[in-house]
Amino acid sequence: MLKQRTDLALEAKTLWEEQAGETTQLEGVKAWDSRREGYQVTTVQILDEQGAKALEKPVGQYVTVELDGLRRREEDAFGRAARALSEELSGLLRLSKTDPVLVVGLGNRAITPDAVGPKTAEYTLVTRHLVDQAPETFGHFRPVSALAAGVLGTTGMESGELVAAVVREVQPACVIAVDALASRSLQRVCRTIQIADTGIVPGSGVGNARTALNQETLGVPVVAIGVPTVVDAATLAADLLASAGQEQVDPAELSGGGLIVTPREIDTDVADLAKVIGYGINLALQPGLTMEELDMLLS
Amino acid sequence: MLKQRTDLALEAKTLWEEQAGETTQLEGVKAWDSRREGYQVTTVQILDEQGAKALEKPVGQYVTVELDGLRRREEDAFGRAARALSEELSGLLRLSKTDPVLVVGLGNRAITPDAVGPKTAEYTLVTRHLVDQAPETFGHFRPVSALAAGVLGTTGMESGELVAAVVREVQPACVIAVDALASRSLQRVCRTIQIADTGIVPGSGVGNARTALNQETLGVPVVAIGVPTVVDAATLAADLLASAGQEQVDPAELSGGGLIVTPREIDTDVADLAKVIGYGINLALQPGLTMEELDMLLS
Amino acid sequence: MLKQRTDLALEAKTLWEEQAGETTQLEGVKAWDSRREGYQVTTVQILDEQGAKALEKPVGQYVTVELDGLRRREEDAFGRAARALSEELSGLLRLSKTDPVLVVGLGNRAITPDAVGPKTAEYTLVTRHLVDQAPETFGHFRPVSALAAGVLGTTGMESGELVAAVVREVQPACVIAVDALASRSLQRVCRTIQIADTGIVPGSGVGNARTALNQETLGVPVVAIGVPTVVDAATLAADLLASAGQEQVDPAELSGGGLIVTPREIDTDVADLAKVIGYGINLALQPGLTMEELDMLLS
Amino acid sequence: MLKQRTDLALEAKTLWEEQAGETTQLEGVKAWDSRREGYQVTTVQILDEQGAKALEKPVGQYVTVELDGLRRREEDAFGRAARALSEELSGLLRLSKTDPVLVVGLGNRAITPDAVGPKTAEYTLVTRHLVDQAPETFGHFRPVSALAAGVLGTTGMESGELVAAVVREVQPACVIAVDALASRSLQRVCRTIQIADTGIVPGSGVGNARTALNQETLGVPVVAIGVPTVVDAATLAADLLASAGQEQVDPAELSGGGLIVTPREIDTDVADLAKVIGYGINLALQPGLTMEELDMLLS
Repeated sequence: MLKQRTDLALEAKTLWEEQAGETTQLEGVKAWDSRREGYQVTTVQILDEQGAKALEKPVGQYVTVELDGLRRREEDAFGRAARALSEELSGLLRLSKTDPVLVVGLGNRAITPDAVGPKTAEYTLVTRHLVDQAPETFGHFRPVSALAAGVLGTTGMESGELVAAVVREVQPACVIAVDALASRSLQRVCRTIQIADTGIVPGSGVGNARTALNQETLGVPVVAIGVPTVVDAATLAADLLASAGQEQVDPAELSGGGLIVTPREIDTDVADLAKVIGYGINLALQPGLTMEELDMLLS
Repeated sequence: MLKQRTDLALEAKTLWEEQAGETTQLEGVKAWDSRREGYQVTTVQILDEQGAKALEKPVGQYVTVELDGLRRREEDAFGRAARALSEELSGLLRLSKTDPVLVVGLGNRAITPDAVGPKTAEYTLVTRHLVDQAPETFGHFRPVSALAAGVLGTTGMESGELVAAVVREVQPACVIAVDALASRSLQRVCRTIQIADTGIVPGSGVGNARTALNQETLGVPVVAIGVPTVVDAATLAADLLASAGQEQVDPAELSGGGLIVTPREIDTDVADLAKVIGYGINLALQPGLTMEELDMLLS
Repeated sequence: MLKQRTDLALEAKTLWEEQAGETTQLEGVKAWDSRREGYQVTTVQILDEQGAKALEKPVGQYVTVELDGLRRREEDAFGRAARALSEELSGLLRLSKTDPVLVVGLGNRAITPDAVGPKTAEYTLVTRHLVDQAPETFGHFRPVSALAAGVLGTTGMESGELVAAVVREVQPACVIAVDALASRSLQRVCRTIQIADTGIVPGSGVGNARTALNQETLGVPVVAIGVPTVVDAATLAADLLASAGQEQVDPAELSGGGLIVTPREIDTDVADLAKVIGYGINLALQPGLTMEELDMLLS
Repeated sequence: MLKQRTDLALEAKTLWEEQAGETTQLEGVKAWDSRREGYQVTTVQILDEQGAKALEKPVGQYVTVELDGLRRREEDAFGRAARALSEELSGLLRLSKTDPVLVVGLGNRAITPDAVGPKTAEYTLVTRHLVDQAPETFGHFRPVSALAAGVLGTTGMESGELVAAVVREVQPACVIAVDALASRSLQRVCRTIQIADTGIVPGSGVGNARTALNQETLGVPVVAIGVPTVVDAATLAADLLASAGQEQVDPAELSGGGLIVTPREIDTDVADLAKVIGYGINLALQPGLTMEELDMLLS
């Protein structure tokens, strides 16, 4: 069993390998690196129950894109990142051209590192009503609807309940769910995006974990897009002390709880990430549109 | 038929009487004035189809509270206004003590005069999850859930579709729907609140009218709380010209469209109104709580 | 004397001509039309005291750019508008290449139609500290500082006092002051930008007029960029009634005061205008930069 | 010399004592505990240069108020905290009844943990213009002006330059400067407020340190109100490792830089703290006003 928990399959694989040592082979998991638009992409495929048990994640494909250049404001970093996400996302969506899609932004708009989901919903090009009302003009668009699902404390409903109710009404062929995650690595915070075809457990990044959103609970495939925006302070402290040879430390002792490690510029980072994910989703769902057309349609 | 349309039953009655002249009696409608906590309250009761046809509104009760002191920041104006709303709302709700309620904030958060609904949802004390999860502590609260229903252009769904889906999931005994309205009167803008037991047509204030939210469409009673936050500029112009004897004017000629008349301080006004309506709802739904306890629970 | 007052020289000229009739010639004023980047540009030049008295504005040059396409989201509308503003602004600035400039955003950030000044300050590329601290890297930039001057009610200081204090400290060669204006014409609201080399009286659009910011009060030339974001409701009503032949109407009777006419989508309009003005200023002040470089430096 | 740096005199004293061991006496420093309105108050008085050298802080008085109950939403916690701050602040201000005061909010509004200064400025009751313009009505108020001084990157001016320019213009008898600080202790983050009569170095909490604001640089006494809203992640890591016996660790190795530890609910915490500090300042500067009157004047 993994001694530590992480939302990122890539980190889970590394943790497993550190624990197992070099001589043991991780069975039931394939992984490979590639590049898209200049960004590093790592794909971890969990092939069977043996792999799922080792990494403590469901069977499926987990694609991690490292958006290093985005923060350094490199040349066309935004456009390249949106296209890279779009291409990786398209690979996992398996949709026919007019299948309707529901985009769900999970998390709490009022807590900055948890707002990446709701903000992404704002950057989603919503077309379902246009396709319905003016098919002669918009009939070539895929019908897309969007929902910022809020959090239990502000709605009194689990995100899963609300999404399930909307799925029954809108009947999408697929749900794309966007949420903040927690990472164990300071280097990955606000720099990494994980796309997975296995669904998501809302609130695992910030706040408490809830009922999963996946094929089983919603009846349609759920592709999850997750961004680590925080490292839990107690986890970080325990990791540091473990690396210093103090294995016995209980993280709960180290902090009063409720503290997170986050970039100083988290407000800007979350805004940038929501925009790049939103554009990535739009390019994947409406392949006929250019970035410039999206700029005009969304502003 | 009324020559002009208005969301306020009070205005509709006045318009009818102006058109009809003093000798004709408005049949099927009763109206009376009262005071609550120092505020002027006018109740218009549409008794039958004759009254409904005359005022172009469904049969039911329409209560208008004039919040004049709120803008002048009179002594305890906020507390008195919240209590006055609470008392009038309680009269229309007809709920038993533990009946669950869904509060829906209609309108577009990103357009200030249309944000009164979503902002009210933020001031609603949400308890459904607490009653479910910790009945020993919260069992004496009424289960309340809340939803900011967004608008067609940002979700791809009609507000009515989304609310219907959530009503099927949450099964409330009643829906309270809050929305911005349009008034004909500059004096009423941001100073009047109408509570009606007849439901609501979302977006009649700002944006286009949509499918009604009412007992017929949702299967449960819908009490609507509406606030006029704008006067349509073309309507205002036509009214002015009509009063100057220029009856033939077509409002559409007067403006390029999309212009509204609104108070200079609309941002503050909408924030104040959302808070007073939210507190009024909370006092009506959780009669055991004081204003001070609400302050603590909501902040 | 003009019967009505307006902040726009273009409107003042039209009002004068309507009052004077076709046979009278407006002396001391020259005006001509041109096009920049596809936008209509009108220049009104007040040549002498006779012209100044007629139009009730100081001697100087007033350039009006009509940004129609911006709201229709035409192809490259944003880029063309920023370049058009930049070119007209450069014509009025008369600066040598390294003259320092102070950009001042006037108005109240918390009142949407008055926020165009403070929001423009956020889009201004600020370089004074970079030129000071790292001249080897940034020495080729013009030193630019920026200030959102707030309003009397939130600072206890007149904008003019605060700007004068900062001008004494920073010693710019020129001040660019951005503020919201009031227009008489519904068609011009949020669609027109006036650039004038005569300075500005803060708060003439929303709120009360204050001490002027100009060469006389600040000791350096002041180029004003003004955007009509509202029409005063009482003014509009009086104009309408006058046009219907009811000349005697007192605007004060028509409204309770404090009401404005504004586009329904004022939040979006103000955000768009602030961005286009900010980029126009940046292109004029740092002529070596492209739009793409500005995107990277400002985000 | 202290091995670690901290903005809080209380922490500096503890660090000194830990390093020195129990047998050595800290000379030139007095400290005592007290309670105000139920809150723990610790006063550290640095009496002379010996004390100043030991704690690496200027000679003067440093009062720390621990606002534990504020986060737990205890009965009247807000009112008691505002009164406690007001009383401690009054002790350091030494003003006659009508001396004018300038309140300065330092920090970057766009970075949540750095926004406590600008947000406090919004809660400051500004009266200078009222006393000037309507002395018959407002002559019994102290003239107060307020300024959110922004940060170098958004204005091109050092906060100190801007404040100095405004002090020359407004000529206050005293400046109150509010800023975010960094703490070494996770327990103190967003729970402690330090009031000091020695001035402040802006940006020591978030961002880089700059020229001091104090009697020497501004010519008038400067009372600083500082709130620790973050712990630097590298500092925290080094402290943890040091406590685990790994003295040799270089904090810079531990993080990529730019990471902070902050409460999950930092947005709410900063809003609450700004309000309580603003009300504390108002009660100290306008002793004739009650909390209820402030509520009305500020909303």
